[in-house]
Amino acid sequence: MGVVIPIEGRSDPEASLADLVALVSGGMERVNATILSRTGSDVAMIPEVANHLIASGGKRLRPILTLATADLCGYAAGEGAVKLAASVEFMHTATLLHDDVVDESDMRRGRVAARIKWGNEASVLVGDFLLGQAFRMMVEVGSLRALDILSAAATVIAEGEVMQLTAAKNTETSEDEYLAVIRSKTAELFAAACEVGPVLAERPRAEQAACRSYGMNLGIAFQLIDDVLDYGGTSASLGKNVGDDFREGKITLPIVLSFRRGSDEERAFWRRTLEKGELEEGDLDRALAILRRHRALEDTVERARHYGAMARDALALFPNGRMKSALLQVVDFCIARAH
Amino acid sequence: MGVVIPIEGRSDPEASLADLVALVSGGMERVNATILSRTGSDVAMIPEVANHLIASGGKRLRPILTLATADLCGYAAGEGAVKLAASVEFMHTATLLHDDVVDESDMRRGRVAARIKWGNEASVLVGDFLLGQAFRMMVEVGSLRALDILSAAATVIAEGEVMQLTAAKNTETSEDEYLAVIRSKTAELFAAACEVGPVLAERPRAEQAACRSYGMNLGIAFQLIDDVLDYGGTSASLGKNVGDDFREGKITLPIVLSFRRGSDEERAFWRRTLEKGELEEGDLDRALAILRRHRALEDTVERARHYGAMARDALALFPNGRMKSALLQVVDFCIARAH
Repeated sequence: MGVVIPIEGRSDPEASLADLVALVSGGMERVNATILSRTGSDVAMIPEVANHLIASGGKRLRPILTLATADLCGYAAGEGAVKLAASVEFMHTATLLHDDVVDESDMRRGRVAARIKWGNEASVLVGDFLLGQAFRMMVEVGSLRALDILSAAATVIAEGEVMQLTAAKNTETSEDEYLAVIRSKTAELFAAACEVGPVLAERPRAEQAACRSYGMNLGIAFQLIDDVLDYGGTSASLGKNVGDDFREGKITLPIVLSFRRGSDEERAFWRRTLEKGELEEGDLDRALAILRRHRALEDTVERARHYGAMARDALALFPNGRMKSALLQVVDFCIARAH
Repeated sequence: MGVVIPIEGRSDPEASLADLVALVSGGMERVNATILSRTGSDVAMIPEVANHLIASGGKRLRPILTLATADLCGYAAGEGAVKLAASVEFMHTATLLHDDVVDESDMRRGRVAARIKWGNEASVLVGDFLLGQAFRMMVEVGSLRALDILSAAATVIAEGEVMQLTAAKNTETSEDEYLAVIRSKTAELFAAACEVGPVLAERPRAEQAACRSYGMNLGIAFQLIDDVLDYGGTSASLGKNVGDDFREGKITLPIVLSFRRGSDEERAFWRRTLEKGELEEGDLDRALAILRRHRALEDTVERARHYGAMARDALALFPNGRMKSALLQVVDFCIARAH
């Protein structure tokens, strides 16, 4: 059920990430050790819940980006970047825990969601604990500017999630409105993760802004591809069933495009399934057929490519080198996932 | 159904708070304006939910304490104390919003809980937004030490709440275990609210520790009296029905004392009602009768008095004056609420 789209560069998506992973592997070992030690608590349930999610291992793209941009800007390897990278991952994990409660999800990263195993209350509270720990680590680093960036991001992320609540189930959401949501709820943390690198390295504002812009646009591309994957990926490789967004009534860009391009009958279909949540046998197949008819998945990938190009251009002012080249490849990685 | 206990000092509890409220009224006007402006967001649901709770107006004891301890330590009136006080109130409000989700409460401060009106998701996310805003304000103040204290408090509070989850419904919880919970979930924020005052004023560690100790012990006393009120207060004055804790199966100090002092039959009663949640007509009356038999409410007030005395003594090293005297009266206020 994959959407096959010609992609520039390498054809194996994992390969595009390999260079970057190798370049920051030393730092990431320390980040992982920090994550492990900072989820420790005398209250046994906290490391249990936190590690259920953390150990299920996403790619840790966000902390990798913090280490990479710090290195790109010549930050002398110290504890600062490691702690900020761990903080970024904690903020992300806290968001996932709180999201599960909000979405009433049963699965997360291919495992049963923490809220199913330990209850909503544990997800809310362990999320709060991780947020608190994230801020403690930032304080230890001692950069008020980095604290400013990451605390602002925490606010913006929550704002984006609330925005999504409001937009949720509204099939008339416009592309711009949808972009505003994903900028806040996803891309802002990518942007902040990348911006604190040059901040730690005490580089000029222009470089801070460049890294921020790289992260922001990469984050938008990343989320758009995620939206596509939800309708086109395979369950085995994603730990997520095709059509989860559909079943939850989530309005994502493929839907926004299809709704606008669709017939009255198709719009009635989207309203029934997404707004009213009245699902019948065969509805997912019909949804996929409508998305195909309007090339909605392909065009969402095209949009992602546009933001990917902006992310690449944002790095133009940095001299060429292995780290810059690895960061450019990450853009390919994000988009190639749509395969 | 009130528990009447002789109390030292004034008999009108509100009067004990009046001096302090008057002394910080100028600062509190600015705190209230800050709270209002910082709940603002283009996402309309955020100020709606936040103000539903904030406007229902608790006494704002925590921000009052921040202003008061800053003033006690000679902090020249500036924006710093106002912003930290508002941060403390946001942290408190965020905790209440998340607590409602955890407790599945229907009421809060005499109004229908936000989660009933807007859903669990809004409570979780607006709580996160307020936490983010709290940290942004702290960052603006720029004191890394204050940030350290308040971010550590955020972590400890979440830890305390998780501890309570684990202890919840366990009638064999010991008094020490219960104290550890309320130290974390309630008293820690009182302690932090009081500690940042001398920190802002750049006073020596001994004064920071004294204010922290005042706040910590006042917070413990405050929570113990809350526990008593839940079994003895009147619905009208509290906006809370008598027996809420009982119906929710919460193990509080009056229960801990009664369980230990009780007969086998009484213990079976507590296990059925609190652990199993099997409630029958007349159970609340029976619970109240058992609490009375073992003087559990009176002795909980006695315990509160003990922590109140520690709070008073903590302030001994400060010279006498109107602010110190007002802070001492707050201890009376907290305990006199048990009337």
